[in-house]
Amino acid sequence: MSVNQLGVDVDRIWADVMGLAAITDPDRPYTRRSFTPRFLEGRAWLARRFEEAGLAVRIDTAGNLIGRRAGRDPGARAIAVGSHIDTVPSGGRFDGIAGVAAGLEIARALAGTELAHPLEVIDFLAEEPSDYGLSCVGSRGMSGVLTDAMLDLIGPGGEHLRDALRRVGGDPDRLNAARRHDVGAYLELHIEQGPVLESGPIDVGLVTSIVGIRRLEIVFVGAADHAGTAPMDIRRDALVAAAATVSAVRQKAEELAAAGCGYFVATVGILEVAPGGSNVVPGRTRVVIDVRTTEPALTQDFVAAIDAASLGYAHAARVERTGFATLSEGPPVACDPALRQVLRESAQALGLSATDLASGAGHDAAFMARICPSAMVFIPCRDGKSHAPEEWAEPEAIAAGTAVMLRAVQQLDRVLAHKEAT
Amino acid sequence: MSVNQLGVDVDRIWADVMGLAAITDPDRPYTRRSFTPRFLEGRAWLARRFEEAGLAVRIDTAGNLIGRRAGRDPGARAIAVGSHIDTVPSGGRFDGIAGVAAGLEIARALAGTELAHPLEVIDFLAEEPSDYGLSCVGSRGMSGVLTDAMLDLIGPGGEHLRDALRRVGGDPDRLNAARRHDVGAYLELHIEQGPVLESGPIDVGLVTSIVGIRRLEIVFVGAADHAGTAPMDIRRDALVAAAATVSAVRQKAEELAAAGCGYFVATVGILEVAPGGSNVVPGRTRVVIDVRTTEPALTQDFVAAIDAASLGYAHAARVERTGFATLSEGPPVACDPALRQVLRESAQALGLSATDLASGAGHDAAFMARICPSAMVFIPCRDGKSHAPEEWAEPEAIAAGTAVMLRAVQQLDRVLAHKEAT
Repeated sequence: MSVNQLGVDVDRIWADVMGLAAITDPDRPYTRRSFTPRFLEGRAWLARRFEEAGLAVRIDTAGNLIGRRAGRDPGARAIAVGSHIDTVPSGGRFDGIAGVAAGLEIARALAGTELAHPLEVIDFLAEEPSDYGLSCVGSRGMSGVLTDAMLDLIGPGGEHLRDALRRVGGDPDRLNAARRHDVGAYLELHIEQGPVLESGPIDVGLVTSIVGIRRLEIVFVGAADHAGTAPMDIRRDALVAAAATVSAVRQKAEELAAAGCGYFVATVGILEVAPGGSNVVPGRTRVVIDVRTTEPALTQDFVAAIDAASLGYAHAARVERTGFATLSEGPPVACDPALRQVLRESAQALGLSATDLASGAGHDAAFMARICPSAMVFIPCRDGKSHAPEEWAEPEAIAAGTAVMLRAVQQLDRVLAHKEAT
Repeated sequence: MSVNQLGVDVDRIWADVMGLAAITDPDRPYTRRSFTPRFLEGRAWLARRFEEAGLAVRIDTAGNLIGRRAGRDPGARAIAVGSHIDTVPSGGRFDGIAGVAAGLEIARALAGTELAHPLEVIDFLAEEPSDYGLSCVGSRGMSGVLTDAMLDLIGPGGEHLRDALRRVGGDPDRLNAARRHDVGAYLELHIEQGPVLESGPIDVGLVTSIVGIRRLEIVFVGAADHAGTAPMDIRRDALVAAAATVSAVRQKAEELAAAGCGYFVATVGILEVAPGGSNVVPGRTRVVIDVRTTEPALTQDFVAAIDAASLGYAHAARVERTGFATLSEGPPVACDPALRQVLRESAQALGLSATDLASGAGHDAAFMARICPSAMVFIPCRDGKSHAPEEWAEPEAIAAGTAVMLRAVQQLDRVLAHKEAT
């Protein structure tokens, strides 16, 4: 069986991706920030495509755009596919968009055939960090974890997220209506945003789990001093301790990543030096560490190692480590083993190569996993680049991933039906 | 012989220092930035004190305020003492000011006695880095190295340094008139701005030389990447190379400082990380290293070591070292051995403890050394702190240093006269 035989039309998918790409802030392609007029323009365009595909279109109270076709069996739970069409500033044309286009193409390819289960194609609201300081707004809403405190967040012009949600068609006073109990499975296609599949090359990645993210902040305070008159042996240089910590983070992360006990990465992306004059010994430094893993035990090991190391470096540099704090923390989310098995069989049947891999980025699927079995299909992207205008995925790669998902939907329609019948 | 017996009046000196301290931008003590109305207010106050001390007051074409008393011998070269009264923003009450107050007190203590040589007390214009991006404006002018390119520098409101100089009483079109050939010796008292004298404790420091300063810039360029999806083993993290370089700078500087072959300090005061997001692998870093020594060979050794090390770190981190540049470079300046001997004998005669030490900071004396034998006396300051409101020197410490200078002036008056007679 081939991708084409399954009814997946590569040109049709590509037209969707490029159609949405044209709806961008013209001065900074590709930008379609959630809650903006540009975003609403993109959604209106997408809603027409949903309708053309025979889907009944609605916006739920959490602001998600949903296209639905009915199933044969009354009361059968829905099979959902989707992702998001909002972007980061100066982002790409594929992150999120490819997943929505895949869902739309699945609906089109299934036109004229009957499924026992309803099918829903979902464009989740604001997956990317929004201007209100929150990501995954729609999938949080659908999984029942969009809190009042989050709705109180303030964005551009002082607008509350609550009001922005109302503005895009949601209803913050009736969020319970968005909380779903009737979804039987969720599948999401996404570009890998990393280099593994391209370098294989491998056609599709079957996501084992979505990493948990922990953000650590370390602050060192020494004494700002004259770079000419303070002798080396009495300095209290806060950068010396911070630099050693950066090296330790790198070394420990490489060690844990190479150990093979699960996905692990750690990054120092922020290192602030104060006062920051060329002729002043640094008196204060701030290091922010982003730690991601599929295995919480690895993060525990890492944090303990960096705790001890950074204290030692502070001591050696005669500075105080005044802060060692967790800024935020989210647990890893495992993809559903049964769904992964269905996806693996689909790839096999289509003659596509596949590999298991972890997702180092967060996705709507991590929230959907709270309410139903969920799984993800990754497709290769050029140089592993994402969140940038040069982000790129080949049309054939998107079509191949879409075919894997389509065949899985057909398979799940049988499996889920059977389960409900017993 | 004691400080008091020599005619040095501690209360009189203290009144000068505190009098100038009162002339500060009120919202950010202690600030008297060169070329500002506040600075001119300070100078007017000082000019009155000069006059009260019997000095003839003028401003030379390089903008230096000079108080002069005539000598007995016609044609004898002047003995000059001085420093500066401008400050850094939110600076202290002693850096520069103590040296000018010392000069003024020497003139007062000598009132009623006759010297063979003229005595000049000099308040050099803009010793601290000015808002026009240049330091030591007045002493550069007096030593003939204030160039046209420097006069073209632009400061607040687009004003050229040339016009600012005119505004404070100088004459940029007649700078040659400020270039001196008639100064026989220059002495400058200054707070140490470091911890050596206080921790001794030692009464006065006799400066052996003023460090040369070299500024190095190193730029590393890797690839900005997603902190979640880029595996550790393919990252090109520009901060990893920069952090290792910071550690190498520290280690090599400690080694050279401890070797005892001359004064040596090196500092990384600037480390910029781009793009600087917590979830982005750094793609570019910039490190600025401030290297100071009395022995140019040490800087050569240091630069060669950091050159090799940083290249190695770039290679190991799979990033490019796209820049390794000298931003600025100035040679060390030795203080005059004969003047230092006179100062040493003065301290001894006054029963004051003294030690040789290098100056890690730049001073007007480094420029005066181009046109006449020059030397400096350092006095202790609290915790080695400078360029900050808490900068502090004890009244008795300033008086002791002043007495050493006064006795040296008297001695030089004999020595220099003798020299000219032969």
